[in-house]
This record gives sequence, structure tokens and C-alpha cells, in this order.
Amino acid sequence: MARVSQEHLDARRRQIIDGAIRCFTRGGFHATSMQDVLREVGLSAGAVYRYFSGKEELIAAIVGEAFGTIKAAFEDAAKQDPPPLPDELLGHVLRTVLGGRVGGGGVEFPRLALQVWAETLRSEQLAAPLREGFVEMRAAWSLLVDAYREAGIMPDDVPADHVARTMMALAQGFIAQQALFGDARVEHLEGGLRALMRMEVPKAS
Amino acid sequence: MARVSQEHLDARRRQIIDGAIRCFTRGGFHATSMQDVLREVGLSAGAVYRYFSGKEELIAAIVGEAFGTIKAAFEDAAKQDPPPLPDELLGHVLRTVLGGRVGGGGVEFPRLALQVWAETLRSEQLAAPLREGFVEMRAAWSLLVDAYREAGIMPDDVPADHVARTMMALAQGFIAQQALFGDARVEHLEGGLRALMRMEVPKAS
Repeated sequence: MARVSQEHLDARRRQIIDGAIRCFTRGGFHATSMQDVLREVGLSAGAVYRYFSGKEELIAAIVGEAFGTIKAAFEDAAKQDPPPLPDELLGHVLRTVLGGRVGGGGVEFPRLALQVWAETLRSEQLAAPLREGFVEMRAAWSLLVDAYREAGIMPDDVPADHVARTMMALAQGFIAQQALFGDARVEHLEGGLRALMRMEVPKAS
Repeated sequence: MARVSQEHLDARRRQIIDGAIRCFTRGGFHATSMQDVLREVGLSAGAVYRYFSGKEELIAAIVGEAFGTIKAAFEDAAKQDPPPLPDELLGHVLRTVLGGRVGGGGVEFPRLALQVWAETLRSEQLAAPLREGFVEMRAAWSLLVDAYREAGIMPDDVPADHVARTMMALAQGFIAQQALFGDARVEHLEGGLRALMRMEVPKAS
């Protein structure tokens, strides 16, 4: 039997994931069958099932990739001194995700995300990677919050994790709006957040 | 034929909606059939279909009620002088919604919301009321933003609608987090937003 190189395996895996993304964004998660994915990538069932046991494992891989992209965007940001402000970082992360493999700024990625969220309510196989990713994202935002405090630009009477959850809520809500209404722009969110950050409110409440 | 009073019609409608909410939150939107709803409310098909043509019309009615609740919470807030700050208003609105007919602070309402959002991608009958509600909510937040500006506590170089969209994103993201992970607390969001509002950032950027 011929030895198969790691590169070949990786390329095959990549090919299957890309085809699945095209199928899911085109037809929705439910309406897409593994047969559709096989047809899309032009591979046999044997070739595909060697990598993925089914739709849920495919979606889990796509979720893993999305979190990988977000994490890289954060790592980029963390190298900057001073750290980018929340509106800048949120804009950078959202543009990286939306401009990535899925979507290209359109509604495809947000719609896929919304479907994955709803599906997660029924599937522990999907819920687990999403939960892990959420914990990682919160940890990354919390580090930024620590940096804002060290720089003396954010009060420290609110747990860093609560600020992190709030930033995540902004990103998730943006994705929901774009999926549902298709008219959300990253610039709107950046501007809105900037206006909130520049409010003149009592320093203690 | 006996005349049926408006009160009787309203009470019947109420009974059906409440039963549908119980069914949807218990079993999910997809797994629930109209048969399940009939069984839950103990009425005949004829009695129920007189009010609702099917699941989608039921969900549309539930969505309409949720928006009604949110609108009332806003109208409450708009009467206050000075207007409540964004963190206070967001907390008030979310507590009103979560503490309402569905959920009681748990994950039921958020999970139903997430299912409705995903369903909306496939159904114009659901998409229309959600879109209208979103426009109304943005208009309500925009009025508050105007009030903050009149009070001189928010810069006016960002369109009010963008701040409104950002506040809506926070609420929607909170609902997504609570649906997905079940550990979101309104206090976290209030605290996180308050920390962002009290950042010390350059006034122009």
C-alpha cells in the first residue's frame, strides 16, 4: 500500500472542510446531507468518512477553525503596545472572521454561526467545542482588560471576566444582527462602542 | 349560535399562546407539532386553528409579545428625567424580558429566541415581524441617545442609530450566551458595560 504524506492528508481534509462550508452556507445545516458534501467535493464516501464521521464532526471542525482565526487576531493585537482599544480590537477581530474563508463580509458566515448556535442546543458534540472556545475567548479579552487597567484607562471595580463577557456579547450580537437582517456594518459597532466608551458618566456608581 | 364575547376570545388566544410557549421551550421549535400544542392546551384542532394557522403564526405571536414587553420597558424608562444610563436601561429591559412569561431568569426564553432566530433564516413569515421589531427597538434606543446628547454626556460625532445598534447587539449577544452556556448574568453585562462607559480614552479619535 502506498504511503500517504501528511501534506496529502491535510490537503484532503482542507478540501472536505471547504466543500462542507460551501454546502452549509448555501443550503443551511439541516437541508445539507453528507451526500451533498460528497458530491460537492467529488470524493467517495470512504475517502470522506476517513476524516469525518458525519455532519456534526464537520461543523465541529469549522467551529474550531473559526476560533483559531479569532485567536490569531487576538495574538496579533496582544503584541501591540499600548494595547488596541476595545472598539479597534473588536473591529479587527470581526473583520478577520468575516473576511476569512467563509462569507467575505456577507451574511454567509453569520448565518452559519446562527445555525450552529441553534444546533448546539441539541448536540453535546457541538456544544463542547463552542463552550471551550468561549472560555478561551473570555480569557483572551480578560488579558486585554488587565492591560487597560495597567495603563490606567479602565476602572478596576468590575471583574475582568465581566468586561470580557460584555465584549463577547457585542461580537455575538453583531453576528446575530448580520445573520438576521444583513445590514450590520463593523463600522457601526465600532462607532457605537466608541461613543459608549467616551460617555461622561460619574466615575463611581 | 351563541355570541362569543371579546374577553372569551382573548382568553382563549392567551391560553393557546401560553401552551405553545410551554411546548416550544420544553421540546424545541422543530420537535413540537401542532398536535403537541393541541394536547397541551386541551382544545380541539378547530378551536385552535380558528386563532392560529400553524406553528409559524404562533411563534410570530410570541415574538410580537416579547417586543411588546420590551417596548413597555423602554416607555417606562423614557419617562424618567434624567434618562437612565445605558447599563441601567439594558439591565432593566433584560430583567423584564427574562422575568416575563417565558423563562423566569432561566435559559428557556433565550433558547426559544435562538431557535426563532435560526428559523427566521428560512421563513419570511417569521422574518418580517422580527425585522419590524428590530427597527422599533433601534428607534427607541436612538431617542435615548438623543437624550444623552442633550444632557451633554455622550459625544455626538457617531450617528445615534449606530449606538442603538450597538446596544441591541449587547442584548442579543447576552441572549445568545445565556442560551448557549446558561451562565450569563444580567449583572455581568451591566458591570462590563459600566466599565466600558467609564474608560478614560481620548475624546476624539
